Amino acid sequence: MKIKRKKTRIIKIGNKKIGGNFPILVQSMTNTPTSNFEKTIKQIKSLEKAGCEIVRVGVPDLKSAKNISKIKKQIKIPLVADIHFSAELAIESIEQGADKIRINPGNFPKNQLKEIVGRAKKRKIPIRIGINSGSLEKDLLIKHNQVTPEMMVKSALRNIKLMEDLNFYELVISLKAPDALRTISAYKMLSLKTNYPLHLGITEAGTEVSGTIKSAVGIGHLLLGGIGDTIRVSLSADPVKEIRVGWEILKSLEIREKGAKIVSCPTCARSEINVIELSQKIEQITEEMETPIKIAIMGCIVNGLGEAKEADLAIVGIKKAALIFKKGKVLKKIPPKKALGELRKELALKKIKKKSGNRKINN
Amino acid sequence: MKIKRKKTRIIKIGNKKIGGNFPILVQSMTNTPTSNFEKTIKQIKSLEKAGCEIVRVGVPDLKSAKNISKIKKQIKIPLVADIHFSAELAIESIEQGADKIRINPGNFPKNQLKEIVGRAKKRKIPIRIGINSGSLEKDLLIKHNQVTPEMMVKSALRNIKLMEDLNFYELVISLKAPDALRTISAYKMLSLKTNYPLHLGITEAGTEVSGTIKSAVGIGHLLLGGIGDTIRVSLSADPVKEIRVGWEILKSLEIREKGAKIVSCPTCARSEINVIELSQKIEQITEEMETPIKIAIMGCIVNGLGEAKEADLAIVGIKKAALIFKKGKVLKKIPPKKALGELRKELALKKIKKKSGNRKINN
Repeated sequence: MKIKRKKTRIIKIGNKKIGGNFPILVQSMTNTPTSNFEKTIKQIKSLEKAGCEIVRVGVPDLKSAKNISKIKKQIKIPLVADIHFSAELAIESIEQGADKIRINPGNFPKNQLKEIVGRAKKRKIPIRIGINSGSLEKDLLIKHNQVTPEMMVKSALRNIKLMEDLNFYELVISLKAPDALRTISAYKMLSLKTNYPLHLGITEAGTEVSGTIKSAVGIGHLLLGGIGDTIRVSLSADPVKEIRVGWEILKSLEIREKGAKIVSCPTCARSEINVIELSQKIEQITEEMETPIKIAIMGCIVNGLGEAKEADLAIVGIKKAALIFKKGKVLKKIPPKKALGELRKELALKKIKKKSGNRKINN
Repeated sequence: MKIKRKKTRIIKIGNKKIGGNFPILVQSMTNTPTSNFEKTIKQIKSLEKAGCEIVRVGVPDLKSAKNISKIKKQIKIPLVADIHFSAELAIESIEQGADKIRINPGNFPKNQLKEIVGRAKKRKIPIRIGINSGSLEKDLLIKHNQVTPEMMVKSALRNIKLMEDLNFYELVISLKAPDALRTISAYKMLSLKTNYPLHLGITEAGTEVSGTIKSAVGIGHLLLGGIGDTIRVSLSADPVKEIRVGWEILKSLEIREKGAKIVSCPTCARSEINVIELSQKIEQITEEMETPIKIAIMGCIVNGLGEAKEADLAIVGIKKAALIFKKGKVLKKIPPKKALGELRKELALKKIKKKSGNRKINN
């Protein structure tokens, strides 16, 4: 199965490019007050370590905007300033060196929008139009009880036009609803009508478990349809978890690779080794690994031999023992309690690269 | 967006029916030794409580098979016996009252398969053909390095023919690979070639987080395509978690409803209430609720008012206070620290039905 990715306009965000054939990037947003420089820097550094490739910060006040240049100095990834309603904060964020701003152009009077766009042009930064079903324009809402995907697309196209009328084309668009179905419909519709890169996300997706599932279903389906240039998983949780989930979605579709890809059985009455414990420990050990490696942890030989054959490293339970496989071949037979130690030894032999792998891009 | 579900053959499994317009059921499998009656019963009861609708148990030995009738007496949901290679265990499981067995017909000599099928016919139980990329027939494997979806489909069709040659048509088919892409391709191909109900799953999907994501992406995509009559999420974790994830996948696509559907923001610099803590607590409180209810927990009014309008119950942070909404209308303004108590009070007013809701089935 090949994903046929839609080639969108290429947009530069700080030291990264998105759209076209460029990798689909994993984003997150801080939940610290941006006015608190120390807390925000600390969180962004954790996000970078987890694999965050673009970070967004809320800018609700002037102190937050003023912090941007200071924050920028200490981080490596592009920074996006999220602004609502205030042209002053948008302009200050741009002047402070934000690599992108996210606004809803329709929220600003014409003269203010012109000023914002002028500054963005001068600084050569793009703007994301962030349509959200929870904050649609009033005139679109009046006729309906519920926000429809059609209304979201209408709002997006209207906002795009406001920008194009000012000869501004360095745009990224998002169209988020808090449920997978509306989000999917809206992005699919818009993707047919515009060539700007799309930032994917289910907004306010919910708690760690339900939000992860909603996002995986929704973002995963769109990516399979070739839609999406950056992704953000929204969770009511530590944003580091958003990055982890974002990467797992991309890995699950073999769009990008990073660190360990674990195949492990759910264990059943046939299991000869402690798969649950082993797989959890292996996951912990490999958490910060960058080099792609496929590891299989299988309780018995029924499916174990087949999986071991396809993995870089594998352990398979047999009668009161365990087999370690390397590149599909048996390396040794060991007592089950030595399994973790053996796997750890084999993993230590792997060189850990500093840069995350970027698998073939699907065109 | 409407899901156009494929109408498959209707199959009876104990007191449940699958296929056609019947609800897509959530399954799991025990990981206790089935020979240990107490442990197995205890686990199945937890699974039932979590919303498990069909349970599978591994039958690797005669003691496990002999336990089936005893187990059946204490549980309410249909029980499926999972058997590999041994006709004796398959026959014993059927005689002990298993509501379905799962085998790979090609693993048995013709005369033994005939005997198994004869017993299944007599007891009027269906058989699942469980194709798994890790245990494909040797002759299919010889020509290739990696198991392809085409090979899996070929294996399925060959196994179906073995059963149809014995005039047995009460079949359910699964086609699991440990990755989303091959699994999706295989099911899509097979769905075009057969009308038997399909049991969906990514096999050996991995640990709690990565396995959840792989399953949500893969199963979610197939369900969106109208494919699938039962689902099982495989996790190297407590099987109760598999049920939770299975339900969340169905809920995320509005295929079925059960208990709380939480919309909660990821919090940002603008948040006025502790969304992470509140949403986690609400999730815990509502865990065993059956009546569908949509709850929004939003840090600020930017998207909060829109989400509150669409929810049954909502809390939205405003300047140093919180608004409680009921059915889209403001109920009261309270100090943020009273939020949990107020939500709890409102939830207690909701009658908790015993049966899980089954939303409209999409045809």
